[in-house]
Amino acid sequence: MTHVPLLQERDRLTPLRIASSMAPTGAVSAELAEFTAWFADCHRHAYAEVERIPLDRLEGWYVERDTGNIRHHSGKFFSVEGLFVDLPGGPVQRWHQPIIIQPEIGILGILVKEFDGVLHCLMQAKIEPGNANGLQLSPTVQATRSNYTRVHGGKPVPYLKYFVDTARSSVVADVRQSEQGSWFHQKRNRNMVVEVREDIEVLDGFRWMTLGQVHQLLAVEDVLNMDARTVLSCLPFSGGDLEQAYPLAGDDAFQDALVRSCDERSGSLHPMSDILSWITERRTLTEITTRIIPLNTVAHWDFGPERIEHETGRFFGVIGVDVTARGREVTHWTQPMVEPHGTGVVAFLVREIEGVLHALVQARVEPGFVDVIELAPTVQCAPQNYDLLPTVPSYLDDVLDAEPERIRFATVLSEEGGRFYRARNRYIVVETDRDPRTVPDNFRWLTVRQLIELLRHSHYVNVQARTMIACLHAMVAGLPVDQRSVTGGQLGEPGHELGG
Amino acid sequence: MTHVPLLQERDRLTPLRIASSMAPTGAVSAELAEFTAWFADCHRHAYAEVERIPLDRLEGWYVERDTGNIRHHSGKFFSVEGLFVDLPGGPVQRWHQPIIIQPEIGILGILVKEFDGVLHCLMQAKIEPGNANGLQLSPTVQATRSNYTRVHGGKPVPYLKYFVDTARSSVVADVRQSEQGSWFHQKRNRNMVVEVREDIEVLDGFRWMTLGQVHQLLAVEDVLNMDARTVLSCLPFSGGDLEQAYPLAGDDAFQDALVRSCDERSGSLHPMSDILSWITERRTLTEITTRIIPLNTVAHWDFGPERIEHETGRFFGVIGVDVTARGREVTHWTQPMVEPHGTGVVAFLVREIEGVLHALVQARVEPGFVDVIELAPTVQCAPQNYDLLPTVPSYLDDVLDAEPERIRFATVLSEEGGRFYRARNRYIVVETDRDPRTVPDNFRWLTVRQLIELLRHSHYVNVQARTMIACLHAMVAGLPVDQRSVTGGQLGEPGHELGG
Repeated sequence: MTHVPLLQERDRLTPLRIASSMAPTGAVSAELAEFTAWFADCHRHAYAEVERIPLDRLEGWYVERDTGNIRHHSGKFFSVEGLFVDLPGGPVQRWHQPIIIQPEIGILGILVKEFDGVLHCLMQAKIEPGNANGLQLSPTVQATRSNYTRVHGGKPVPYLKYFVDTARSSVVADVRQSEQGSWFHQKRNRNMVVEVREDIEVLDGFRWMTLGQVHQLLAVEDVLNMDARTVLSCLPFSGGDLEQAYPLAGDDAFQDALVRSCDERSGSLHPMSDILSWITERRTLTEITTRIIPLNTVAHWDFGPERIEHETGRFFGVIGVDVTARGREVTHWTQPMVEPHGTGVVAFLVREIEGVLHALVQARVEPGFVDVIELAPTVQCAPQNYDLLPTVPSYLDDVLDAEPERIRFATVLSEEGGRFYRARNRYIVVETDRDPRTVPDNFRWLTVRQLIELLRHSHYVNVQARTMIACLHAMVAGLPVDQRSVTGGQLGEPGHELGG
Repeated sequence: MTHVPLLQERDRLTPLRIASSMAPTGAVSAELAEFTAWFADCHRHAYAEVERIPLDRLEGWYVERDTGNIRHHSGKFFSVEGLFVDLPGGPVQRWHQPIIIQPEIGILGILVKEFDGVLHCLMQAKIEPGNANGLQLSPTVQATRSNYTRVHGGKPVPYLKYFVDTARSSVVADVRQSEQGSWFHQKRNRNMVVEVREDIEVLDGFRWMTLGQVHQLLAVEDVLNMDARTVLSCLPFSGGDLEQAYPLAGDDAFQDALVRSCDERSGSLHPMSDILSWITERRTLTEITTRIIPLNTVAHWDFGPERIEHETGRFFGVIGVDVTARGREVTHWTQPMVEPHGTGVVAFLVREIEGVLHALVQARVEPGFVDVIELAPTVQCAPQNYDLLPTVPSYLDDVLDAEPERIRFATVLSEEGGRFYRARNRYIVVETDRDPRTVPDNFRWLTVRQLIELLRHSHYVNVQARTMIACLHAMVAGLPVDQRSVTGGQLGEPGHELGG
């Protein structure tokens, strides 16, 4: 047999390459201006006309006679059914709700390639009917399982082949991660980052960007879509030599603590074995029972021809939309969507402990999770619903009452625009001086490195926490608190919304 | 706030402490003789009388009228129901079978403590009615969820408190792992290793042993029980300085390759990111559908008053047993058990690649797995069933036809003695010179370190592979191929079996 070379753990080299792609390559304002011009041009050529319509005017969808479930005639896409939840000891112990069922696992993939020694991501300007501004920046590929197994034939998805057959490329990340466990039943997507060396043709609506350039957009309202954020969060950005790329400044204790928090040589309040044990314990001791039930048996929800709503008008509704997407071709369809009421609050409380930044993480139960609990941000809620509930979420007041100089990051970002209508959360990083030695049983202080390590595996970190981790990555390279001051709020066009 | 000390990753220190506990502390034969005397003494005071009885003579169990499912009157323990499996592309594409349903997650825990600087495990001689020799060596604790939440009251399980409240101790490992996916539906147990510093009273039937002493028993037939093996496999035994404890011998290439395989500085054929991507791909692309069905609708199985059997008489049967356990108290019960036909073969093909030992791992589908596939040994089958199937398992011939000097380890060990009647597998490590560059899509060569890293997380490595990993750990310290030559086959008593 000829010589078979062994590989050192490739991941050890990756963090530094990621770090150097995160660094600003030029003047931030000039880069953003150039992106803004390109994105506005994309928006002139591709936009969505979205109109709210009553559920009984959906075309291609039907209400199943016995169950009231909403399904597509083709059997594809997704269905809206009912869920029964029993959670002894929870703030609400039993409830019914509508839920989206979409069991297939799709691919969310970012193609990366080195140019002049710097990793670039191939990003796509993509129509997102549910989102406020119609067009958002998305990963290279968002493909359903039918797309990539090609069982239904159909138009090939550009660049998908690089994610389906990785034999000639390098896989940087490839992990199934959950999506909103309050609205989806066990929905997962494969989050992939694949590096190619060959030449790649850049199609209309696609653009190579450094990580730094993509990260800047995290501070802009409603531009970087959820799928892009979750894939970015899975980059293995933690290692032993980050100070090479990000020397400690000395004059900015917060920034230095954040860099140390990504460094694998730094200590942590809890060793990983204790964190894993805590997760095992929460998953073992939490008793939750869920059962899919017919949508028409869901109690305390009103079913009108227009929409399905909770009898209080709170939480979320199921609505219909009519979408005309205009790009090189015009496509038209209608579909049901989930419309939450009010902008949510998603926040990490962070603090340095002995010079290393830690984030306060919640072991959170959501009924759609595959494995009982996942790690979530400190606070994740829609504050307008809480007058209906017996208890206020832990730490919500710490976030809402934070002094402005304690707010290290704050932007409103949209959730998945293909299923959710105007689902927006304010993502906030708040510095606190809470004593780290006393936390409730369902909270723990983790370093960024520990979260990144967990993200190599499925179902540990929920989708909201993944957006926050992408933001923390971006802050390592100096993301401003809010980018609107740079762009003057001009990024993206006002949109072509007809309804709402 | 006062000083809050940060911890370095404790796991970095653990491997060396484990390594030193694995080393022989004295003459192996003398230690074994002492153990044998103690174990024989235990056996005189605690043994099981086990009699096969017809299913219709089970007491405390009933057959549910509509479904034919076998349940306990208390609603506790487990039930035997039916499973429908659809596995397109599998060797058999669709089948029905009986399956054990036991949804509660119990604790399998080993308590460890340092004596004279060496870690010792508190092991228990425990009655196992399904096993050939009645008494086996088990972890400190085997507890059901009802035991540790104490919902049903009942007698407290000795030492359980150290696993339920770990505040005053150190958790070395704590991870939910699957059990036999062919016979159990989504059964998991928490595998825990907890280190204490306080004094511990040693009760009758318990004994402190070094890891080396426990490992020696892996080479003895039917002594170390499955629960002990799976917990031992979860020890984080891989690190950067193993050569301190196990200097490379130079004259034994196999042994040196094995030590390097546990060392985190050694390379591997595939980096971990590629292994994780391969697992993600297999889990995403494999289409398996399973559904619990009434036991009385299971096709191709014969239901007699005596037993439930496949119409061919192969695979396994469901039988009844009557158990009288005699220890300080006498307890008597009856229960159903799964009885497989014939001794199984479980084998790892291993080979050095550039001086580092790699094991050929299979991404295996079992219908009871929680997450589609888990990593299994190269070969895992009951050879006597394969004349009924269209294809012979890959690599089975490599194992069955191996030259004796290629067999690095071989012992017959029992599976879980509380649910399985005389379920025995021959565990074999075979050295091969197969070309590592060409393997089927569902196989990969992994180092021992990579397997140990995956074992920190749930549902990656199946229970048979975990036994093999415990054996590979033991081989680092020089486990003989087969211990019977040392003990003269006298270990344990012939047993007090009445039936069979």
